[in-house]
Amino acid sequence: MDSNTILAAFDDVARRRGWQPLHKPKNLAMALFVEVAELCRHLQWRSDGEIEAMMRTPEAGEVAAELADIQMYLMKLAAILDVDMEKALAEKIAENRRRCADKTAEVYPG
Amino acid sequence: MDSNTILAAFDDVARRRGWQPLHKPKNLAMALFVEVAELCRHLQWRSDGEIEAMMRTPEAGEVAAELADIQMYLMKLAAILDVDMEKALAEKIAENRRRCADKTAEVYPG
Amino acid sequence: MDSNTILAAFDDVARRRGWQPLHKPKNLAMALFVEVAELCRHLQWRSDGEIEAMMRTPEAGEVAAELADIQMYLMKLAAILDVDMEKALAEKIAENRRRCADKTAEVYPG
Amino acid sequence: MDSNTILAAFDDVARRRGWQPLHKPKNLAMALFVEVAELCRHLQWRSDGEIEAMMRTPEAGEVAAELADIQMYLMKLAAILDVDMEKALAEKIAENRRRCADKTAEVYPG
Repeated sequence: MDSNTILAAFDDVARRRGWQPLHKPKNLAMALFVEVAELCRHLQWRSDGEIEAMMRTPEAGEVAAELADIQMYLMKLAAILDVDMEKALAEKIAENRRRCADKTAEVYPG
Repeated sequence: MDSNTILAAFDDVARRRGWQPLHKPKNLAMALFVEVAELCRHLQWRSDGEIEAMMRTPEAGEVAAELADIQMYLMKLAAILDVDMEKALAEKIAENRRRCADKTAEVYPG
Repeated sequence: MDSNTILAAFDDVARRRGWQPLHKPKNLAMALFVEVAELCRHLQWRSDGEIEAMMRTPEAGEVAAELADIQMYLMKLAAILDVDMEKALAEKIAENRRRCADKTAEVYPG
Repeated sequence: MDSNTILAAFDDVARRRGWQPLHKPKNLAMALFVEVAELCRHLQWRSDGEIEAMMRTPEAGEVAAELADIQMYLMKLAAILDVDMEKALAEKIAENRRRCADKTAEVYPG
């Protein structure tokens, strides 16, 4: 399923619900952040080992649904900001490679 | 560029840097949230109209880079949690369609 | 009610529930962020005018409860990191005054 | 230093800078979240033990400054939403005590 198909489904729901006027950059950025927090509700009090165990229970389906929500809001935000994600990813990867080849190692990612 | 290519590039940098032990679920979830905030730094004090104007300046390249970072951490987190994003998106879209067909209208999305 | 009273109440609940081992820096930072998102759920699809109107309805009580949660997690995180908030606030205010007196104006806060 | 003193200092800087029109509910909520992320940049790739060690280095001063920023934005947001934080905290603590006395134990906080 490509990003156009996902966005078309997202927009179709928004149109039927009358939510399209709400889909502006700041609202969508806040929604993206709220969805990341929804995901974190499943992780926040657990160790990495406990998260791994939880992902073998039915709760894993809820985690997958939150990841899908994040993906949809990210795509919608990129679309409304007129950002070409394919191009942005290719440039970011090229930049990371260049920084990696640089002799000055960073202690932590970022 | 498909998600496997993006993940391979992400992991390649991590391997060269020695960051792979840091890529655990909670760290990656926190990184995802920090990247969303990096994006919001470009939006937080601006109106939607000012954001639109900013996206016609060179700062748009920085916004695109943040969106790419969010996308990469999201893919990596899904991979490490062993979530099939294609399947998760298809299920979420189907669920949204069902809720949309339901007569009980929600006032706000979510 | 001073911060020691608030922290004592917070810790008392944690002790009775057996949650004290969960109150470590990274968990608390993630909890802080999740609580900010809980607050944002009341704001995200509304304009500032609509938020003002909502604050004259019973939903205002839920918003107040979220703000209180954020305050408690912030105090607990500061306590566990051994940060003297009184001192940190005094220093931050002094620093902001110095930057404000500086002739080089910043276009946006931060 | 009480919350009125802190708010007065915050507003004084805003007035001199001309930032007061920016201090609206949604902007402040986004700023609060961005400041929490600024704090998390110091924590995200570290274990709780590494965070404890970091808090004995000069970086602890940066962490304290971020905590102060979060506190100031939280107070300003409460003020602009006309929320009495003293009352909100007292009610939240009373509610937590009631839930704690309830026989049905929750596995996780929240």
